Amino acid sequence: MKLLRFGPPGRESVGAVDRDGRLRDLSSAVPDLHLPTLGLAGLKRLRRLDPSDFPVVRGRPRLGVPFTGISKFVAIGLNYADHAAEAGLAVPAEPIVFLKATTCISGPQDPVRLPAGSTRGDWEVELGVVIGRTARAVDEHDALAHVAGYTVVNDVSEREWQLERGGTWDKGKGFDTFGPIGPWLVTADEVPDPQALSLWLDLNGEPRQRGSTATMVFGVARLVSYVSRVMTLLPGDVIATGTPPGVGMGMKPPRYLRTGDVMTLGIEGLGSQRQRVI
Amino acid sequence: MKLLRFGPPGRESVGAVDRDGRLRDLSSAVPDLHLPTLGLAGLKRLRRLDPSDFPVVRGRPRLGVPFTGISKFVAIGLNYADHAAEAGLAVPAEPIVFLKATTCISGPQDPVRLPAGSTRGDWEVELGVVIGRTARAVDEHDALAHVAGYTVVNDVSEREWQLERGGTWDKGKGFDTFGPIGPWLVTADEVPDPQALSLWLDLNGEPRQRGSTATMVFGVARLVSYVSRVMTLLPGDVIATGTPPGVGMGMKPPRYLRTGDVMTLGIEGLGSQRQRVI
Repeated sequence: MKLLRFGPPGRESVGAVDRDGRLRDLSSAVPDLHLPTLGLAGLKRLRRLDPSDFPVVRGRPRLGVPFTGISKFVAIGLNYADHAAEAGLAVPAEPIVFLKATTCISGPQDPVRLPAGSTRGDWEVELGVVIGRTARAVDEHDALAHVAGYTVVNDVSEREWQLERGGTWDKGKGFDTFGPIGPWLVTADEVPDPQALSLWLDLNGEPRQRGSTATMVFGVARLVSYVSRVMTLLPGDVIATGTPPGVGMGMKPPRYLRTGDVMTLGIEGLGSQRQRVI
Repeated sequence: MKLLRFGPPGRESVGAVDRDGRLRDLSSAVPDLHLPTLGLAGLKRLRRLDPSDFPVVRGRPRLGVPFTGISKFVAIGLNYADHAAEAGLAVPAEPIVFLKATTCISGPQDPVRLPAGSTRGDWEVELGVVIGRTARAVDEHDALAHVAGYTVVNDVSEREWQLERGGTWDKGKGFDTFGPIGPWLVTADEVPDPQALSLWLDLNGEPRQRGSTATMVFGVARLVSYVSRVMTLLPGDVIATGTPPGVGMGMKPPRYLRTGDVMTLGIEGLGSQRQRVI
């Protein structure tokens, strides 16, 4: 099932994508998509609904983040060997974990606002793993049973603030609007193999990132298990699993985001995002 | 006013400390201390209550985190010049910002659980600044008007996971139980100068950390302003403002946490914490 939320910020309604790709309004049956409340059991109940039984949504409403209740936005660094190479960094021996501030989260088509004076904004298409069941020190073979589904994340980054403004990456990864999530929460039953998905990102219509989750250094099950040994993962938490090559920092010369740029990005079966830079 | 929450985890009641240091049960008048709901206006209303009008709490109940609604747990690194020196690192040119996972938050007397195989657990007493009003790119001179109050934080750290396990500090700072907060939320009106507070931490009754917020590299107003330019701060968010010298990593030889150790720590006027290491 492809679940989503549509409407103005803070007043989104619940929807789903039907078999023919049309947006259906599920709000008469589903008041919200608060994952800490729903959990895996609630999602299973939702999957019994047939979107085609619900009204088609007219027009092209704004899309919100496809679910609510994100208490932690975890991200993984340098998780594609070819991206580590373009960043000039070694492939990590174990997952690099950082946290994106939850206030950076925005809808998949909302504008990305560069901070004042920014000259090194950059893009990163990533597979987002959405937790559906509390995960504490889970084994790798059991990890995927804690996943509610998958989504697209743009792990927007400001490289100067990330790498040259002291200590950790969290500043450059955490500005407001630096975490578009969506368009859909695709439930895990529709993603039989999360390690076989193609990812892409275009800047102003020109191809920039092309990759496949097949080349992750640490796969989804390993990441969920690893992170759950550091911090308890709660339903609604998101893990952005790293980006394939093609970021602006890796270009020669580097090409960073400018006002008016348009990023379009997507993942096979998970839909696409579009953000204008302001 | 010294606000707090007491009772079993997840079922805490609201209390306050009266003039004579006794714990009073405010639950008949105050159902909860959810800062995103209360905001500064709600706290102001609470301050009209006289704790001595309420029943004394019998016995010595567990204390919880003194408020709820912490969406971000921001922390500042190397913010005391003498601590930077003991860590062998330069005083930063601008604040080092990292995020502690919100799942690490625990009550001021709850045990601290070292992760499996940990050999380098460490302590850090810190002044916690609690946000009371949404702060987005606020100026330094206006920053303190966004502060609800102050509390004690133990920024528990695992140095191997922080410094040698790849990339950022967030893993070593984010383990469950690594963020005791409390005992009280002391409203800002009772802390006329947050840069004139003594801090202390003892390990098994022996003095380890002694300092004063007077020697912070970046003061509270500067930190709130700086962080608010990176990420919007919401009511309930906490900023742990860095630690004075005396951590285990800085001892010669280093002395790290072991099972059975007891940390006691406090800040002038803000009360004290006590954690057993398990």
